[in-house]
Amino acid sequence: MKYAIIGTGAVGGYYGGRLAHAGNEVHFLLHSDYDYVHEHGLQVDSCDGSFHLDAPNIYHTTADMPKVDVVIVALKTTRNHMLKELLPPLLHPETLVLLIQNGIGPEPILQQQFPNLYLAAGLAFICSAKTEPGRVNHQCYGSINIGNYSCKNQQIVDRLIQDFTEAGIKAASIEYHEARWKKAVWNMPFNGMTVVMNAQTNQLLANPATMQLIRRQMMEVIGAAQALGVKGLDESFADRMIEMTLSMTPYSPSMKLDYDFHRPMEIDYLYSNAIAEAHRAGYAMPCLEMLEAQLRFLQEK
Amino acid sequence: MKYAIIGTGAVGGYYGGRLAHAGNEVHFLLHSDYDYVHEHGLQVDSCDGSFHLDAPNIYHTTADMPKVDVVIVALKTTRNHMLKELLPPLLHPETLVLLIQNGIGPEPILQQQFPNLYLAAGLAFICSAKTEPGRVNHQCYGSINIGNYSCKNQQIVDRLIQDFTEAGIKAASIEYHEARWKKAVWNMPFNGMTVVMNAQTNQLLANPATMQLIRRQMMEVIGAAQALGVKGLDESFADRMIEMTLSMTPYSPSMKLDYDFHRPMEIDYLYSNAIAEAHRAGYAMPCLEMLEAQLRFLQEK
Repeated sequence: MKYAIIGTGAVGGYYGGRLAHAGNEVHFLLHSDYDYVHEHGLQVDSCDGSFHLDAPNIYHTTADMPKVDVVIVALKTTRNHMLKELLPPLLHPETLVLLIQNGIGPEPILQQQFPNLYLAAGLAFICSAKTEPGRVNHQCYGSINIGNYSCKNQQIVDRLIQDFTEAGIKAASIEYHEARWKKAVWNMPFNGMTVVMNAQTNQLLANPATMQLIRRQMMEVIGAAQALGVKGLDESFADRMIEMTLSMTPYSPSMKLDYDFHRPMEIDYLYSNAIAEAHRAGYAMPCLEMLEAQLRFLQEK
Repeated sequence: MKYAIIGTGAVGGYYGGRLAHAGNEVHFLLHSDYDYVHEHGLQVDSCDGSFHLDAPNIYHTTADMPKVDVVIVALKTTRNHMLKELLPPLLHPETLVLLIQNGIGPEPILQQQFPNLYLAAGLAFICSAKTEPGRVNHQCYGSINIGNYSCKNQQIVDRLIQDFTEAGIKAASIEYHEARWKKAVWNMPFNGMTVVMNAQTNQLLANPATMQLIRRQMMEVIGAAQALGVKGLDESFADRMIEMTLSMTPYSPSMKLDYDFHRPMEIDYLYSNAIAEAHRAGYAMPCLEMLEAQLRFLQEK
């Protein structure tokens, strides 16, 4: 299958790089890094084995790119308004668009603009950063769960998982809603709380008051998912997420990095969409609604 | 009536100063300011008329002070553990102790240590600061509501209100629980939120998200008070508090000043006691419980 990567950063650069390194045809959309990568190629420093792409297929604009079988979108959701223009040159009738993005709702929102598009969610569990031009630093983890949202041809999803696997990426299929809401159980408490408290994950869990608060916020997400009829989440999942976070090295989630580097935060997709979904099921998430308000305040300050 | 002031700071210095200036016998407990006031007296700069006490009755320790009819305690609640030692020298069988303090619970907690003590709450609505030794700066407002908690002789409370009034202080009687919970409607949202968001009252109300959150937190306090059977609070009181705050000059509540100057915050009395009271009535305050957790984190950080 042919691949296009929109958003060749810490995440898109890693997964696209692995696919290309394994011999797949991958086309990368680049912006600020174009000249550097054109001259020096793309370097991926990885805990699972570093590699270098000497001459990847790179482009300034999707208009110059070929139609592909899979588009991997690894943009921040704050840029999703650009997809209406970016996607069309890449699409044939059975192109699958995989959104490796945070939050609740990117697929249904994009589907409204492209009613017949095949869409899937990619839930990446990865610590990765783009530290300098043309260089991705993959520190640890790296698995990805794929939730089929609207791809009528399941074979495409299966082949995508196979390509990932053969490229050395741990990939699995998961029910779409379960995938998005499970990720939200971790994302909603930790992204906002690290911003508002100006702290890393380990500091929040070292204090009994915020540890308990984080758990309460996780239970709000689980309660919302259950109210919406999503399967696979119960109280024990919150405990597992806390255990897992305790075992991680101190971590600043993407929203904390966005805030610290004065980039817009993904409040809409990480908070507002999830809160609105929960409300539609008659469920309130008071602590996460408070967190959303605190983030809105900091975003405008 | 004879008066003693424990906590001769921005609040105790102002009210005690006014009583003394009006001719009442007032005995002040001083710590760091003792030598300065001994030499220069006590200066009160006030929007309602400044004055100077040339030779106030001042003491290093309550052991040297006479028994009085009214003890005005204007300490932070973080120092209430000292009252067990400070109070006894000042008490005769009918001494009234007026606690001009923030939060829920100082009277019942102190009553456990002094079962027969006459206690009342003083709810001060005042902008005042102690800017330098021996100098109180009373900027605006200054009224005080007195809620009788356990004074079996109502005449003492009435005379106290009369003495305040004759000293130029607007004073009124109010039902005890109503007094404490009404004050909490303003105190609980604004004290904590100005700390966590590092902002003044006007900034919080200028942002629609935090304005709505502040109102929600006020409604949690009102809901708790109603669940506890406290009269006199309904939804309109939240609107009035917000209107009142919008008309104030930008303001940093006492907890914000405590935090900025690295003093302990009054989390126990302003938050934990109120939350525990509400829980006893089966009522939860999720947003204020979250705020409490955030403050505990900042206090330890």
